[in-house]
Amino acid sequence: MGGIYLALLISVISMCFSVFLFIRVKRSSVGTEKMVKISNIISLGASAYLRRQYKTVSVFFGVVFLVLLLLSFCGVVSNFVPYIFLLGGIFSAIPGYLGMKMATIANVRTAAAAEKSLSRGLKVAFSAGASVGFIVVGVGLFGICGLFLFLNYWYTNVNIIETSKIAQNITSEILTFGMGVSCMALFARVGGGIFTKAADVGADLVGKVEVGIPEDDPRNPAVIADNVGDNVGDVAGMGADLFESYIGGIISSSALAIGAGYGFPGVILPMVLAGVGIIVSIIGALVVRVKEKATQKELLASLTKGTYLSSGLMLISSRFIIKNILPGNMGLFWAVISGLLAGLIIGLSTEYFTSSSYQPVKSLSRLSQTGAGTFVIGGLSVGMISTVIPVVTVSMAVLISFLSSGGNIATVDGFQRGLYGIAIAAVGMLSTLGVTLATDAYGPIADNAGGIAEMSGMPPEVRVNTDLLDSLGNTTAATGKGYAVGSAALTTLALVATYLYRAKDVAGAGASFDLTLINPAVLIGLFVGAMIPYLFGSYTMDAVGKSAMSVVNEVRRQFKNIPGLMEGTAEPDYSACVDICASSSLRLMLPPAAIGVGVPIITGIWLGVPGVLGLMVGATVSGFVLAIMMANAGGAWDNAKKYIESGAFGGKGSDAHKAAVVGDTVGDPFKDTSGPSINILIKLIAMVSIVFVGVAVSLHFV
Amino acid sequence: MGGIYLALLISVISMCFSVFLFIRVKRSSVGTEKMVKISNIISLGASAYLRRQYKTVSVFFGVVFLVLLLLSFCGVVSNFVPYIFLLGGIFSAIPGYLGMKMATIANVRTAAAAEKSLSRGLKVAFSAGASVGFIVVGVGLFGICGLFLFLNYWYTNVNIIETSKIAQNITSEILTFGMGVSCMALFARVGGGIFTKAADVGADLVGKVEVGIPEDDPRNPAVIADNVGDNVGDVAGMGADLFESYIGGIISSSALAIGAGYGFPGVILPMVLAGVGIIVSIIGALVVRVKEKATQKELLASLTKGTYLSSGLMLISSRFIIKNILPGNMGLFWAVISGLLAGLIIGLSTEYFTSSSYQPVKSLSRLSQTGAGTFVIGGLSVGMISTVIPVVTVSMAVLISFLSSGGNIATVDGFQRGLYGIAIAAVGMLSTLGVTLATDAYGPIADNAGGIAEMSGMPPEVRVNTDLLDSLGNTTAATGKGYAVGSAALTTLALVATYLYRAKDVAGAGASFDLTLINPAVLIGLFVGAMIPYLFGSYTMDAVGKSAMSVVNEVRRQFKNIPGLMEGTAEPDYSACVDICASSSLRLMLPPAAIGVGVPIITGIWLGVPGVLGLMVGATVSGFVLAIMMANAGGAWDNAKKYIESGAFGGKGSDAHKAAVVGDTVGDPFKDTSGPSINILIKLIAMVSIVFVGVAVSLHFV
Repeated sequence: MGGIYLALLISVISMCFSVFLFIRVKRSSVGTEKMVKISNIISLGASAYLRRQYKTVSVFFGVVFLVLLLLSFCGVVSNFVPYIFLLGGIFSAIPGYLGMKMATIANVRTAAAAEKSLSRGLKVAFSAGASVGFIVVGVGLFGICGLFLFLNYWYTNVNIIETSKIAQNITSEILTFGMGVSCMALFARVGGGIFTKAADVGADLVGKVEVGIPEDDPRNPAVIADNVGDNVGDVAGMGADLFESYIGGIISSSALAIGAGYGFPGVILPMVLAGVGIIVSIIGALVVRVKEKATQKELLASLTKGTYLSSGLMLISSRFIIKNILPGNMGLFWAVISGLLAGLIIGLSTEYFTSSSYQPVKSLSRLSQTGAGTFVIGGLSVGMISTVIPVVTVSMAVLISFLSSGGNIATVDGFQRGLYGIAIAAVGMLSTLGVTLATDAYGPIADNAGGIAEMSGMPPEVRVNTDLLDSLGNTTAATGKGYAVGSAALTTLALVATYLYRAKDVAGAGASFDLTLINPAVLIGLFVGAMIPYLFGSYTMDAVGKSAMSVVNEVRRQFKNIPGLMEGTAEPDYSACVDICASSSLRLMLPPAAIGVGVPIITGIWLGVPGVLGLMVGATVSGFVLAIMMANAGGAWDNAKKYIESGAFGGKGSDAHKAAVVGDTVGDPFKDTSGPSINILIKLIAMVSIVFVGVAVSLHFV
Repeated sequence: MGGIYLALLISVISMCFSVFLFIRVKRSSVGTEKMVKISNIISLGASAYLRRQYKTVSVFFGVVFLVLLLLSFCGVVSNFVPYIFLLGGIFSAIPGYLGMKMATIANVRTAAAAEKSLSRGLKVAFSAGASVGFIVVGVGLFGICGLFLFLNYWYTNVNIIETSKIAQNITSEILTFGMGVSCMALFARVGGGIFTKAADVGADLVGKVEVGIPEDDPRNPAVIADNVGDNVGDVAGMGADLFESYIGGIISSSALAIGAGYGFPGVILPMVLAGVGIIVSIIGALVVRVKEKATQKELLASLTKGTYLSSGLMLISSRFIIKNILPGNMGLFWAVISGLLAGLIIGLSTEYFTSSSYQPVKSLSRLSQTGAGTFVIGGLSVGMISTVIPVVTVSMAVLISFLSSGGNIATVDGFQRGLYGIAIAAVGMLSTLGVTLATDAYGPIADNAGGIAEMSGMPPEVRVNTDLLDSLGNTTAATGKGYAVGSAALTTLALVATYLYRAKDVAGAGASFDLTLINPAVLIGLFVGAMIPYLFGSYTMDAVGKSAMSVVNEVRRQFKNIPGLMEGTAEPDYSACVDICASSSLRLMLPPAAIGVGVPIITGIWLGVPGVLGLMVGATVSGFVLAIMMANAGGAWDNAKKYIESGAFGGKGSDAHKAAVVGDTVGDPFKDTSGPSINILIKLIAMVSIVFVGVAVSLHFV
């Protein structure tokens, strides 16, 4: 039990470290008055949006809360479940909100620092990103450990139950926490994603294409909305997303520990691993130091050095942790390694397919010369082929972690041990999230800094520096997405196993389910599951399209009706565009969440446990490839466009560039709305299935 | 056994009917000398290409043949297997080649008839399409029945074996026939698909976009290649594709009959159903008659009338067939109905999402006003959401056919009966293929007729008529694709079951495989399977892109280097473009086939039977949704473009139209190369798995 106090302590250290970084960023110079003014407008817009978002979400949470309350009265779920669900939602909102606050404070300071030098800009932006990263992991680990300690106290001191049942009860209740987290994360990702991309696409379509003014030009009425979007989508949404991955990985392995026969030590192991991961991430973040006159390459090397150092330290320390907590199970060490390595490999693969330094994006750029059609086809093709390495890597990680942790399909016991190993691999992959998130979150901050530099009329060198920072961020962000998607696959597999064992538990002794692949209920579940990410993707892309259309109309209207706008003598009405993005994103984010919550329940009623299991697995395998395809195609288009803008094939304004802009527009919802939301969706489906397992067991047609 | 002779007889009738239609078309007027000249060039190009294709393919077949020969010496497969595999390839090539011949004869005659009236044009084109349709089903049924009778004769008279083993031996050997058919079909679809889309995209990119000459303008050097492509891709490729579906459906149900305890009558039932399906299709095709002055709407009604009549007749007659062949198993009747209805529903859903008469394409067209980016996003979104109805429909068909045919997951026997029911549903869906293929194949013929009309300088009214015919064809072709994809899903499920029973057979008594969803080998198989269609899609799209690029360069070169080409005083070098398309399509079609054959074998060696089963199911569920998404997105873009060309949002030449052309370019490889090939791929993976089941059973790591 000592381990959990250690983890709790480390989670507090992580939050303190985040505050320390926050103070350091806050102390940095804010630049000119005009910059501060613009930054304030962005910050106010972002805060106002998030508050509205939380209000809308609370209605949804209220409804689910009441349903759970009803189920708890009927005895289908425990009394704590409705409240823990709410708690999960609240916890999931915290890092998103704080991350957004941090980002809006850092953007103007990054711009001011980038005026002095590239490396100073990096320092501010990276500190801010790290602050976001460590608040995410700190709050996450704090929540799980705290909840665990509370429930443990409750069942051993207040409402005393059999010792053998305590761990079982706690882990199944903590899964509800995960469902709350996933719900909130889905809203944050989808809502923020719709907002940011509607504003981005809308601003570009009229500004760049129709009117011919540069990006982030202050005359564009959608420019503030675009910058607000970066904060609510790319920072708050992404923060909630990775927070959810982190929580999901830890709780799914805890939940499997009992079945695998590891008892309390097995429940605690993932938390301790996560805690030590935070410490090594702090060390990794601290070594990111850059010389005053560093080149872009040196900057990137310095960023990746932090990640590699953390991974290396994690590797060494996990050996000691496992030796102490679960002696005699050193096979789990290999599970951690396989997870860590798989994360790195997926990250490198993502980088290869999306960075303009390598052949895929270079070839893709060439296709822009024959027009937008071939450029779009080429990007889809890159996205599709980029699924191969992640799939093979995850497959290998599954196999290695299963076998090394004593997995054996011949016995129930061996099976559970192996599945616990798979879950531990997910924890290993996410253990260094603090530092990977730091490199991930700093991208949108640099992007925003560029926007502020442009709008406040700073010298063009500043924009050059912020663009360099931004493009570094694209590469590191790709790595972050690799971790998110890889861990989502491993975590869901662990959740699938958890679901099965909970179903058996609920159904009582002697119950057995036919889960063979050729059971029609399983097959139908797989078919429906494979389709859900497409339905979801279609809906979210449509939402971006519709919202962008409203923005386009508003921007056109302003250019037509406000005299002197084009000449720069009149101010556009920025808040109108912010408002359009906010209202439509809030309206359109509800149905996707309803899909995630509704489909597993309906499938349970229709097809019972085998159908739900099929649904979970179908959604995972199909969603995994679709999410990677969308994220990487989007990244490849974006960087190919940037490559062309840097002068290739005629540079900015050429026909090749116009074609590339089309591809980038398609890629925007791919990589920042639909793709990343799918990761959350598949985990949400799994969590909902687990929480509502009683329904599928007791009430089904087939 | 009488039933099989009946089926054989009907297959001969079908071929005779095809010849009769052929003669009727041949007798029709050929138009002017110039038209004949152009038609001959196209015909020669198509024949030359197909001959080269068969040559290339024969190398591949030779290699697989030798491998099978080796395996037959080792006793892993029976002695007949290598030869039956070859036979399957040859049989699969026949309808493709004859269909192409028919189409190249009919195109010029359709153009000549369309000069007189719309309905005369329809009559010629539809007769030609029906001729293709009935040669496909005739040859297919003839092949299966003939092979069955030969093998039956062999095992009862020449190499006499136990009576109880005869049906077992025959059905497993006929599966090798299916593998040959699938291999050849994959080559025809992929090779033809690359050819046709490379030529199409290449011709449009330079002709329409850069030089600004209309489609099918004789000055465009790629115009002949484009028209050759219609014949080798949309006719020969599509013919081989649906031939493969047809064969796959029949043999997979025959293979399941023994396990289900139906014996010989169960083996024969699907053949008889297919035979009667041909008769009702002939009746359906004969009622397609149009008045001289029919409107477009009346023409469409007349075409669909044929399909509905055939389906209705099939419904009635299948009751009698089942009553006669398998009395007491009337539940199978509901399986046939569920298949037939599922086919119709998927067809209607496809029509809804791809026809400009309905809301999805209309909304999509509107998105063209905000540029190519939003138009492409919109089309992808339509494609994605269009997967919902087919998935739910197939799921319902699986459930109904399983349960109604006595399926019961509690007993091995009940399981097999239910799976046989699913296979029979696939046969039901494909039974009226003759008439659906007729409406499908006539589209490219009308398209070609339009090309000939344009190139030979016929009056513009002719082009209006052929365009109307072509657009009718787009809608009916969509229906055909619905059948192909729906039946592919059902057929593969039947093949999955076949695989499992063959694996148990090979492994010997007492062997059991852990096929539960949470077995890591199954999970990895599912992951890899879900990824394969993406890998395949990426490769085929790349192939189209690369080949189109070569065509673009050649066309540009000719416009630059041939003086007087633009003015129409000099002739372009058509054959250069045909040659480029041919060589690159032949070179690039080999790797996708290698994926289809190689992956299941490697998976078998790596993960054994559970892994292969996961692979098959993963590829099916992921491939199913991906194929529908691609086909329908492509159809929606195409028809949205046509809708705009008909005058909406500024009509031809407007910015909206330019955006729509980009979408259509993306859609070309989607709907005519990658999407339809995926259907074949998933069946090929299943067939190869079955043929090489011995490898997975005896030789695997996990």
